Amino acid sequence: LVGVLGGMGPWATLDFLQKILKATPACRDQDHVPVLVSNIPQIPDRTAAYGGEGESPLDALIANGQRLKAGGASVLVMPCNTAHLWFDDLESALATPMLHIVDSALRELQPTGTKISTVGILGTDATLASGLYPNRALAVGAAVRWVQPTAREMIELLMPGIRLVKAGRLDEGREHLNAVARSLVRRGAQALVMACTELPLVLDNSIDGIAAVDPTSALARAVVHLSKHGSDAPGFASRR
Amino acid sequence: LVGVLGGMGPWATLDFLQKILKATPACRDQDHVPVLVSNIPQIPDRTAAYGGEGESPLDALIANGQRLKAGGASVLVMPCNTAHLWFDDLESALATPMLHIVDSALRELQPTGTKISTVGILGTDATLASGLYPNRALAVGAAVRWVQPTAREMIELLMPGIRLVKAGRLDEGREHLNAVARSLVRRGAQALVMACTELPLVLDNSIDGIAAVDPTSALARAVVHLSKHGSDAPGFASRR
Repeated sequence: LVGVLGGMGPWATLDFLQKILKATPACRDQDHVPVLVSNIPQIPDRTAAYGGEGESPLDALIANGQRLKAGGASVLVMPCNTAHLWFDDLESALATPMLHIVDSALRELQPTGTKISTVGILGTDATLASGLYPNRALAVGAAVRWVQPTAREMIELLMPGIRLVKAGRLDEGREHLNAVARSLVRRGAQALVMACTELPLVLDNSIDGIAAVDPTSALARAVVHLSKHGSDAPGFASRR
Repeated sequence: LVGVLGGMGPWATLDFLQKILKATPACRDQDHVPVLVSNIPQIPDRTAAYGGEGESPLDALIANGQRLKAGGASVLVMPCNTAHLWFDDLESALATPMLHIVDSALRELQPTGTKISTVGILGTDATLASGLYPNRALAVGAAVRWVQPTAREMIELLMPGIRLVKAGRLDEGREHLNAVARSLVRRGAQALVMACTELPLVLDNSIDGIAAVDPTSALARAVVHLSKHGSDAPGFASRR
């Protein structure tokens, strides 16, 4: 049974659950992948915590992970990129295997036949500042160059855009976020990664003709694959 | 913590979770109602069981209810009308209070200032055959007359329509279900109740100018109310 440690934010969790259903061939209820979900958004803000301006989310993440374990979940996923800054601590505190969203996303960055060298990354301040994606790509030998928004774009467009989406003001959020995405394309990005689960709620899978990889979808496909094929699923018992 | 005993079907559970989010005034993640959700669709078919043609879903319902309790849920809801045929057994087996979807729906049938006397009900064969709605309305003194589809409409349109929705074939499903809804309006229904959680996935809140009450939304609003106001919420610790 897959446990979904969600609520970060709650709309992104629903987007993730929808993507699991869409990725599953099914003609009746019973064909779908069983999941146990904590959509419990009372978790301290991840970006504030990383910046030293707020409480760590780790205790709340552990508590919700334990709820899912108590309910019978044997593998966990988190549809939140920033929360993956606490992935290693969480996985060891819970002593439960977890699928890593970055591993799922990286697999989709190098589709057969294409050679992508410069990737534009959009995510929270904490995701970008921590090097979550580039460092994990390096660790698994994915040779890509990364470009990211400027500090000013982060403060004026990207972070406000994410907050607008979380507040349900989708059109305004989309406008902010598209502006940043287009900047990265102008600066040479040959693919984009929507490395915050609020982004695919409002952005398309293609921006100015450039493919935008959706880590939420990638993680959903990994869950379906795991559920159908067990622990030989790619990225399972992760590559730490 | 509210536990959502879902998976019947999995799309209807997501619809219910969305309706909880939409019913919550929130401008950041942490403002949203925390829920623990079992979206586990491996539960024997409710309508087949009621017809004596399949295993009872009760054991699976109890098992999933226990998962939610183990995870800390202190009140449960089921976004599935037909599953409410086992509501009393389930509530007493789990020894946990539950909100009843029919109570939530009935409250919305009699909005202040309107007097609805004939209500058309759309639901599964088991929901209609068991008298789930009329019997509970009687018990709480809601004086309405009920009309329902004919046996032929049930077999040829309504049940196939629900199965099409469950299989993701939404447009075909919608066509089947709208045809039945229009029959009830022709026969004098002054309001409709979409008493199967697959129906609001494809039907509008108004059909030929007649209001269609959505029990999924009504239950979602009850959850938000309970979460904000505690056990003085209407319909809490139900009226059995």
